[in-house]
Amino acid sequence: MPDIFQIEAVDPSGKTKARAGRVHTPHGPFETPAFMPVGTKGSVKGVGPDDLRALGAGIILSNALHLMLRPGAETIASLGGLHSFMGWDGPILTDSGGFQAHSLRALRKDDPDGILLSSPYDGTRVLLTPELAIRTQSLLGSDIMMCLDECTPWPADEREAARSMGLTHAWARRSLNAWDPSKGALLFGIAQGGFHPRLRRESAQEIASMGFPGHAAGGLALGEPRDLRLGAIEATFSVLPEDKPRYLMGLGTPVDILDGIMLGADMFDCVIPTRNARNGQLFTNRGPINIGNARYANDPLPPEEGCDCLACRSFSRAYLRQLHKNREPLFPRLASVHNLRFYQRLVRMARERLKNGTLLDYYKEFLDQYAPDAAP
Amino acid sequence: MPDIFQIEAVDPSGKTKARAGRVHTPHGPFETPAFMPVGTKGSVKGVGPDDLRALGAGIILSNALHLMLRPGAETIASLGGLHSFMGWDGPILTDSGGFQAHSLRALRKDDPDGILLSSPYDGTRVLLTPELAIRTQSLLGSDIMMCLDECTPWPADEREAARSMGLTHAWARRSLNAWDPSKGALLFGIAQGGFHPRLRRESAQEIASMGFPGHAAGGLALGEPRDLRLGAIEATFSVLPEDKPRYLMGLGTPVDILDGIMLGADMFDCVIPTRNARNGQLFTNRGPINIGNARYANDPLPPEEGCDCLACRSFSRAYLRQLHKNREPLFPRLASVHNLRFYQRLVRMARERLKNGTLLDYYKEFLDQYAPDAAP
Repeated sequence: MPDIFQIEAVDPSGKTKARAGRVHTPHGPFETPAFMPVGTKGSVKGVGPDDLRALGAGIILSNALHLMLRPGAETIASLGGLHSFMGWDGPILTDSGGFQAHSLRALRKDDPDGILLSSPYDGTRVLLTPELAIRTQSLLGSDIMMCLDECTPWPADEREAARSMGLTHAWARRSLNAWDPSKGALLFGIAQGGFHPRLRRESAQEIASMGFPGHAAGGLALGEPRDLRLGAIEATFSVLPEDKPRYLMGLGTPVDILDGIMLGADMFDCVIPTRNARNGQLFTNRGPINIGNARYANDPLPPEEGCDCLACRSFSRAYLRQLHKNREPLFPRLASVHNLRFYQRLVRMARERLKNGTLLDYYKEFLDQYAPDAAP
Repeated sequence: MPDIFQIEAVDPSGKTKARAGRVHTPHGPFETPAFMPVGTKGSVKGVGPDDLRALGAGIILSNALHLMLRPGAETIASLGGLHSFMGWDGPILTDSGGFQAHSLRALRKDDPDGILLSSPYDGTRVLLTPELAIRTQSLLGSDIMMCLDECTPWPADEREAARSMGLTHAWARRSLNAWDPSKGALLFGIAQGGFHPRLRRESAQEIASMGFPGHAAGGLALGEPRDLRLGAIEATFSVLPEDKPRYLMGLGTPVDILDGIMLGADMFDCVIPTRNARNGQLFTNRGPINIGNARYANDPLPPEEGCDCLACRSFSRAYLRQLHKNREPLFPRLASVHNLRFYQRLVRMARERLKNGTLLDYYKEFLDQYAPDAAP
């Protein structure tokens, strides 16, 4: 297997475990730490590929299960694959859909074979197996495929978390067997283990032993308290090999992202920037603002002074408020572009600051402005 | 008053009354025949100023009444005017809101003073007078202002249409008095008269006699049959002076636009391209298609082969169907950009063909493809 991950720097201050790197995929490389905008159904909500390129996204995420249910992986394959379908020629990571399968409607519990679910589009029953997840992601032409896993719920006692973890491990092995590495796409294994550090370490050990090109920590951001989350990440990353990319799934707020980077994560995805944008929340270095607030009715400033995004370059808070209040379809685009640009700037700044050994200072400076009352 | 309208060509074949020209405004010139995308509340629905420039819009339309009610004309003025507010530096025509005032909720009938209405945003009562409409449009910084008029309903008998027309004439005189031409913005008078050719001619005569820089035919596209509409346009344009721009308000379908051009209209506005886009209808030279139709589920073609718009350059009908079915917020943008580009291409093609004397041939060629079963 070629060297798909180059580490360019590890925080030289030694104060964090952060690293800067580059992951190579069939659709080119992307820099890490990377934040992946989420395009679950083949579109980052409200944001076109032209906007994604302009705001600096290096890789985006989509969801194999959703695309399998609609319009169908074969349909997308016949149209030239997901990149061609959605007009994005950069790297794409696809989640298998294990997380969504459970939240959609798992019809049978604890089925070792896979996840039996009912399509939210037409009620069709589908048994999502590890093999089907790999086949689907291959048809889509994904650059980075994810193993089907079982997202251990929170809270779950140690016994339940261990059972769930065992299923994830068995499915990881089946995924690996179903994967044809000669085709170029990468496959990442997912470590689970609930919020029990012992299980987290055990899962990371087991997944790491299988020889995936990259690894992920799954089962996080389920509503758990921050210290539990950080403990689980730390336990997972203490075991996952350092020479392969680490993807922290489903996180998070800007502070979560920085936390993750300092613990050694290389890749992130989260719906927060786009979902919150649609609800009128715009991220700024001084914390998020709700653009519908009456205080912005006459505000001539851009959402964030100094921001170079499409929204900030051309529009005032007053105008964005007008769009939001009138539910103008232009609003989701402008707000999402702004928030995604904010996230891209965040990970790029972290990358720069870790390279020169001042990431921890950056973290403190960021928190001082962003959430002055938050205890880091 | 400077010469704001240059006629570059009148159909040399003599078979139509079409002309090609150029209107000069404080924000630069635009070519005619012109189709104006509609941005009622300060945003062309789903389409950013970057998209509008890319698709070739020379002038856009907004609505003074809506902006007066929200966020307020003074607010927009304090933010630098409508152009700055919405990030569009080309010409803007503002309708006074007479048409909308009636459809919103006129609280008192036949008030010679103005239109008493209740704001759909907060219930505030507003008396929209000709003077307030001019003041509002001045505050917005409109390039082309429209007189407040009464849109005569259809059907209306001759007596009712005559009464309504008299009100429009009185309001036109008051608008003219309230207008300060030294500030650069143009003011167009609106001829009404229902669908009674005698009244149409009388109204055009009366409005023309007042000396506006441009004229409009109002009160059309209310659901009337095509022959009534064409008769009313013909009667109006037979009287309106040829050396001033003629704006055909609220029209229409692609065929309506070509009909209007052949009768001598220079400017058009209509919500059809953007509203129909949001409902999944995409215009093509072979007639509109409904992208939600199952026949497009695997269709690799762009909405229209040969179209150079953002949607057609990058996406298949199958992908646009996926966006439409999933109610993705990217859909309104792509579909509206396509339809607006279709309309821009239509008026540009008409402009070229009229200049070389083959507009009537173009009309027939267009109909043959677009609506082969329609009697022209």
